[in-house]
Amino acid sequence: MTDPWKECMDHCLVVTKEAGKMIREALKKEISVMQKSSPVDLVTETDQKVEALIISSLKEKYPTHSFIGEESVAAGAPSILTDNPTWIIDPIDGTTNFVHRFPFVSVSIGFAVNKEIEFGIVYSCIEEKMYTAQKGKGAFCNGVPIKVSGQEDITKSLVLTELGLKNDPEHFNAMMLNMRKILTIPVHGIRSPGSAAVNMCLVACGSADAYYHIGIHCWDMAGGAAIVTEAGGVIMDVAGGPFDLMSRRLITASSRAVAERIVQQLQVFPCGRDDTLG
Amino acid sequence: MTDPWKECMDHCLVVTKEAGKMIREALKKEISVMQKSSPVDLVTETDQKVEALIISSLKEKYPTHSFIGEESVAAGAPSILTDNPTWIIDPIDGTTNFVHRFPFVSVSIGFAVNKEIEFGIVYSCIEEKMYTAQKGKGAFCNGVPIKVSGQEDITKSLVLTELGLKNDPEHFNAMMLNMRKILTIPVHGIRSPGSAAVNMCLVACGSADAYYHIGIHCWDMAGGAAIVTEAGGVIMDVAGGPFDLMSRRLITASSRAVAERIVQQLQVFPCGRDDTLG
Repeated sequence: MTDPWKECMDHCLVVTKEAGKMIREALKKEISVMQKSSPVDLVTETDQKVEALIISSLKEKYPTHSFIGEESVAAGAPSILTDNPTWIIDPIDGTTNFVHRFPFVSVSIGFAVNKEIEFGIVYSCIEEKMYTAQKGKGAFCNGVPIKVSGQEDITKSLVLTELGLKNDPEHFNAMMLNMRKILTIPVHGIRSPGSAAVNMCLVACGSADAYYHIGIHCWDMAGGAAIVTEAGGVIMDVAGGPFDLMSRRLITASSRAVAERIVQQLQVFPCGRDDTLG
Repeated sequence: MTDPWKECMDHCLVVTKEAGKMIREALKKEISVMQKSSPVDLVTETDQKVEALIISSLKEKYPTHSFIGEESVAAGAPSILTDNPTWIIDPIDGTTNFVHRFPFVSVSIGFAVNKEIEFGIVYSCIEEKMYTAQKGKGAFCNGVPIKVSGQEDITKSLVLTELGLKNDPEHFNAMMLNMRKILTIPVHGIRSPGSAAVNMCLVACGSADAYYHIGIHCWDMAGGAAIVTEAGGVIMDVAGGPFDLMSRRLITASSRAVAERIVQQLQVFPCGRDDTLG
């Protein structure tokens, strides 16, 4: 059997487009915001509705598959990656952007089998950019092949990261220190667009050369990981080891040289794992 | 005589569209990069060509007017604002973004008479968003009226700033400290898109609630200042006094309350003025 997951990917594309449409519609109306873990961790009714739409559509077609969705996990569902075919879903990646109508908002879906990602879809739905990648088949934006910049020189790199308050002051200090250490290498600049999945796609299409993040979640990364890898990018742990989807740690870059230079700079702080119970 | 500058603005719109087209064409080719004052201060042939296009077209039509253009100033032209009608031009705002094809790149033009800005145009030319505003006549994006969010609560605000290496370590430390002080208020988040003019337009259309920057230039601000003001935004100095186009200091926000809360947080460092000779 060749291409056993092609049909899943095709169906996923249809659902993702629908989800994106729902998000664009919601942007035209008033958005009511709720807090999750802290004043800077936001969720809206739309996050929950879009996740319900995606999961119900996929579950109906693939009742034996497993699901890890950001809002389901927030509501108490487990977040354990098994060998079973598993859909890893962020209905709105960049919820704060969504709340502010800041133009980087995406639907991110990754599909893993035997703990390996088979395909990923990230739909930056305000820009209407559909990023797709299937293992071994390249990466695309709106059907056009994309590839990383190939930049090997960190001093000529544009680097992405996230800028947010951390509940733990030590983690916050480490985040600020890491930014300082990257800026002073020096690099061409740091950008912070506010959607992890879009950040990965920006590296994938060569608009940025690297993205690092400690404290990211599996649903932020699963779709983008397939895309950046298939675009020729490097993906690794922030300490330089192999990438681990459940580790909440990510460096992705245009080349191994750039990724490893970032590893050298980063002070890693503990952020837990996505698959730890409780 | 009503609306004495309408014809200038109409002509400027035509020139700006042409400039945007030239930038988009350049993005399709290889971009060769030169350094200006430091490894992170970049310029390309396209910056220089686009500025030459804009200035020659405007000068031909308005030979008695004055011109302040980023690349002309870099080449030694004076940067003094007089009462004479003056075009203040950034041919590519976000040159680093342009070099990386990161999607926020704009042409920014402001037109001042008696040292007051009469109109501004910012063309975010990858997104194809044309922001325009004339004094007393409102602000527009692609012809559709825009307005600021009106947010008055800093803790619900999305804040924009620039993240770059400063040549002076003390200034760099102050920039990092300012970011920390804004993040810990707390705010919803900080974003750093990398084009000052686009940042101002994002505040103008309500996608962000504030933007602060110490070390900005008059050509980065002149177009956006008209747009954010006409969109109902507040614009002031980083120490809370009146906005001064040549001061290299800017806060713009959705409301006075948000702007003043940022003033309270910022540690101001000396950055010189645009109109100091030598």
